Amino acid sequence: MNQAIAVRNPRTGQIDHWITPPSVETLTTQCQQLRQGQRQWSEAGLAARIAALQAWQEAVQERRTELIRALVADTGRLSVSVLEVDSFLASLDRWCRRAPELLQDTEQHTAIPFIRLHQTAVPYPLVGIISPWNFPLLLATIDLIPALLAGCAAVVKPSEIAPRFVVPLQQAIAAVPALESVLAVVTGAAETGAQLIKQVDAVCFTGSVATGRQVAAAAARRMIPAFLELGGKDPAVVLASADLDLATSAILWGSVVNTGQSCLSIERIYVAAPIFAAFVDLLTTKAQALQLAYPTVESGPIGPIIAARQADVITAHLADAIAKGAIVHCGGKIETWDGGLWCRPTVLTQVNHSMLVMTEETFAPILPVMSFTTVEEAIALANASIYGLSAAVFAGSEPAAIAIAAQLEAGAISINDAALTAVMHEGEKQSFKASGLGGSRMGAAALKRFMRPKAYLVKTQAIADPWWF
Amino acid sequence: MNQAIAVRNPRTGQIDHWITPPSVETLTTQCQQLRQGQRQWSEAGLAARIAALQAWQEAVQERRTELIRALVADTGRLSVSVLEVDSFLASLDRWCRRAPELLQDTEQHTAIPFIRLHQTAVPYPLVGIISPWNFPLLLATIDLIPALLAGCAAVVKPSEIAPRFVVPLQQAIAAVPALESVLAVVTGAAETGAQLIKQVDAVCFTGSVATGRQVAAAAARRMIPAFLELGGKDPAVVLASADLDLATSAILWGSVVNTGQSCLSIERIYVAAPIFAAFVDLLTTKAQALQLAYPTVESGPIGPIIAARQADVITAHLADAIAKGAIVHCGGKIETWDGGLWCRPTVLTQVNHSMLVMTEETFAPILPVMSFTTVEEAIALANASIYGLSAAVFAGSEPAAIAIAAQLEAGAISINDAALTAVMHEGEKQSFKASGLGGSRMGAAALKRFMRPKAYLVKTQAIADPWWF
Repeated sequence: MNQAIAVRNPRTGQIDHWITPPSVETLTTQCQQLRQGQRQWSEAGLAARIAALQAWQEAVQERRTELIRALVADTGRLSVSVLEVDSFLASLDRWCRRAPELLQDTEQHTAIPFIRLHQTAVPYPLVGIISPWNFPLLLATIDLIPALLAGCAAVVKPSEIAPRFVVPLQQAIAAVPALESVLAVVTGAAETGAQLIKQVDAVCFTGSVATGRQVAAAAARRMIPAFLELGGKDPAVVLASADLDLATSAILWGSVVNTGQSCLSIERIYVAAPIFAAFVDLLTTKAQALQLAYPTVESGPIGPIIAARQADVITAHLADAIAKGAIVHCGGKIETWDGGLWCRPTVLTQVNHSMLVMTEETFAPILPVMSFTTVEEAIALANASIYGLSAAVFAGSEPAAIAIAAQLEAGAISINDAALTAVMHEGEKQSFKASGLGGSRMGAAALKRFMRPKAYLVKTQAIADPWWF
Repeated sequence: MNQAIAVRNPRTGQIDHWITPPSVETLTTQCQQLRQGQRQWSEAGLAARIAALQAWQEAVQERRTELIRALVADTGRLSVSVLEVDSFLASLDRWCRRAPELLQDTEQHTAIPFIRLHQTAVPYPLVGIISPWNFPLLLATIDLIPALLAGCAAVVKPSEIAPRFVVPLQQAIAAVPALESVLAVVTGAAETGAQLIKQVDAVCFTGSVATGRQVAAAAARRMIPAFLELGGKDPAVVLASADLDLATSAILWGSVVNTGQSCLSIERIYVAAPIFAAFVDLLTTKAQALQLAYPTVESGPIGPIIAARQADVITAHLADAIAKGAIVHCGGKIETWDGGLWCRPTVLTQVNHSMLVMTEETFAPILPVMSFTTVEEAIALANASIYGLSAAVFAGSEPAAIAIAAQLEAGAISINDAALTAVMHEGEKQSFKASGLGGSRMGAAALKRFMRPKAYLVKTQAIADPWWF
């Protein structure tokens, strides 16, 4: 028998949900069944897979209210929960339109006159997806949709911290028999994730650097590819020529949306000295205007802290910064209301790289602002991090911004905006340093990485090869 | 002080060469210098890099005789040594022509009207390449050339078993100062390889599965990509409708070229029962006609066994097969001549999958032939392996061959020919199972895998985003 895992409600601090992880035997059997289902899924062809995903889309649409309600219970916030469901539905649409061009075989002549090349690709039979609690639905499905269209079967294990959405999602899957034979969503914690990696042919992991390293090692032992999307400490660089109103609004959104619980949120802000004071004033004014989603989910955009253990990290980072001389312009502490843990948008100055809040991922609506004198200094500060996920640059001239972006060690850089990888999907990007490993989850590569390219080298004439003995 | 490593001559069995591995400090310093050089190499642009590689090509051409002589000493065979040098020179040509189209940035509109996408890619600063002894020059440079064109610096560590070619290669590198600042070839054994992985941003390894697993684990610990090209046990499937003369010639070449010391050599042959006897007769006749490259390198195409320890593997595989009932039609044992170890092309029948010679990599000119009754049986036998590198199918009709190829678990499949990935480079392929991991070393991906895609998401209008608070 497996121990049930208790799930805390982020708005009340109370346990109000339980999940039961599968036994190793159950998980193994389930994976074997998915492998069996995958053969037909792959052989049925793309049109059949698109039809199944469109049926799934309808089934999700019918359960939209339950799904949003579950996500609100999981995360304590409303508008981002609605956004998660709608983005998921839009993503199904987008991938079903995009997939046909990405799954074409090609034929070509080669440099050898009597050899023709037929280029195809075959899906990894079974993909494992281990997803985090900050965007429970979105990050459980971002890699899943292209994997399914590629022809893979998949097992998804969402975080044990926000697993309530799994129930309506499983119902929507059960409504589409063709999909049910190739897709399972299992609940569980780290142990279930570790077991899952032992069963699959490729693994996608979104989460912390520490766990990501374990996933990479486990995948390497099994000689399977690991696609890792890990933490970030994204910098924003604001030149003196930047539009101050736009820069402050973009950075505020990029920092505090989803209460800062996003790997690609802006967590460090470097502002040119001449505009530093004006920037901090305007940013603070805008930050102070944002209300908590308390007492009701509709009271404001700033939701509760989802994971209780994250509140300890935030408290430690703030205490460390304040002890080392940081000035708090607004926010600055964890508040407890009715058992929920909350953190208001917090603008800090007098910060430096000796502070945890400038070096470790805080995962909170904290905006530490530091001034710089030269562009070289700004670039050096932005790159002085173990992370390299994404970044933002604000400047009056686009070439000046691009010149800086070219030197930033990050996979995606928003120019005169922030955190755009949250809302656009066309660009291919790969993380630098500890922020991840493996092919891009955006753009065409997001689907192609789930297939092995396979080449048929066809001899077209019955002649002896000139290189034979 | 580092211990010098003695190198055995495969034709004489005598030690006639020594190499000295670098100390950790020397290697570290060298890698730091290469990283420094890489900045300019990358910034100078592709045209400058092409010019440097063309200068290198000339420098190699000038030392062609010395390089061939060193490779002959390394490997004991002549014509494949000439082929290695000429293929390397042709590969420089081919990549210099191909690279410009692969290194283009692109600009595109996105689904969001006020966001433009600029797609670029940045090279991994320092790539480590660990290469084997069977094609010393070819496999030391196959990944190197696209990595250099991508803008990477590189350290190459060839096998300690066949390192003589390094001396003329280093001289050719020293003749091109621009290249010398970004390319080092170091000599050493496993310990040097392990040290190298600790220094680089991406690692390419060609060699055994056992070492490949260690490389994958070491790379995962450092969160860097590993591109692994490992062992194979490539099957050939011959249908009753196949052209027997062509099939036997192709399979013989694919099995015994380079004395079978090739990861992509044919090591298992499955022949339709109706033509089995005729196939074995013709194959044996052709195999018997092949002479050893003894007493001189020009005496025949079958060179000595390069690595003495491999002779023990071959002996064990043959003894195991014979003990279990295999029939030897020709060859069948290790011969010693003047201290060199030799193995004539060996045709075996009455073989089955209980034998090492049908399951483990033999890396020798051994051709075990097994009959099958149905196509399904042939496919099942071909896939009954821990390996999945490449394969070959022979049939009277191309669609029949392709239908089988589609079901084979291998990255590249020659149709009515064998081992074509040795001679053509356009197709993208990825290994199945234990035969490897990571992006294709053939086709466009061979270069692109050395670059991280990087996206600039440019906001083109100074307007508030609709999703901001």
